[in-house]
Amino acid sequence: MTSTRISSPVLVDRFKDAFRNHPAGVAVITARSGEAPVGLTASSVASVSAEPPILAFSLASQAGSAGAVSAAETIVVHLLSDANVELARSFARPGGERFTDSRQWSWLPGGEPLLYGTAFALRCRILSRTPVGASVLVAAQLEEVLETNDNAAPLVYHNRSFHRLSAGSLLP
Amino acid sequence: MTSTRISSPVLVDRFKDAFRNHPAGVAVITARSGEAPVGLTASSVASVSAEPPILAFSLASQAGSAGAVSAAETIVVHLLSDANVELARSFARPGGERFTDSRQWSWLPGGEPLLYGTAFALRCRILSRTPVGASVLVAAQLEEVLETNDNAAPLVYHNRSFHRLSAGSLLP
Repeated sequence: MTSTRISSPVLVDRFKDAFRNHPAGVAVITARSGEAPVGLTASSVASVSAEPPILAFSLASQAGSAGAVSAAETIVVHLLSDANVELARSFARPGGERFTDSRQWSWLPGGEPLLYGTAFALRCRILSRTPVGASVLVAAQLEEVLETNDNAAPLVYHNRSFHRLSAGSLLP
Repeated sequence: MTSTRISSPVLVDRFKDAFRNHPAGVAVITARSGEAPVGLTASSVASVSAEPPILAFSLASQAGSAGAVSAAETIVVHLLSDANVELARSFARPGGERFTDSRQWSWLPGGEPLLYGTAFALRCRILSRTPVGASVLVAAQLEEVLETNDNAAPLVYHNRSFHRLSAGSLLP
């Protein structure tokens, strides 16, 4: 066992190391901001409660796309499959190509942008926003399932790379 | 694209399907409850902010171990590696064997139980508890890194099974 007792700037670095090494599922969260669609890649989406169906995620900023998602009443949380790596990358890059003509998406009747071809697309209503440092923790309740694909191979983000789960990665 | 518009009991089932299919890193969170150590397996731990270093997780109940963790001032969040599958299983099972003599653990000076041999052990102070339905969203700030193991192979939970990430699961 490596036991280290360390403080502030080093603590921040060790925290980053820990979460760079902590794997996560990948989602793209979209919303409408004025007349424009906005979206971002998030690796913090988790189920909070099944009845009622509520999920949560964190936003590291309250500016730009994150601020627009946080301010929205309703959003679409797209859970990604291994077929969506380029989608994940483009919505993670500042200034990345999003909502281009070539990308398949459309406005929903409620005004949210729906991206086609993800594993699950969940239209949700934001319930609460808890400020945490400069970030915000968002809880949102599922209102409608717009896309389901139970057979999609799951996508995992880890150490700045993407992985695909399969029978080969299964532990006994 | 499968487009389905469905409501309540079916909505809950679809929500469960979506999150059963959404992969997640695995953690065991421990705390002291009276004189006893308590702990539970969580797949919702995510980084919220790096500066200051803050993480979040959700607890689906406010009874039992989850209630004790939620009520604690300080906790230890252990991020698990592929060597910790049995630990993950025993802390996930109701009535599972935890803190037995054979398991390597000790009390920290602050009173929290530390499990040895995980990828990262993060002693944290709870900052906020946001009730969400019957669940609670917890934010906690890192105070001390007690164990670091950057080379640990990450453990992923998906569809009630555990996976190991490796070069073989990496996507181009």
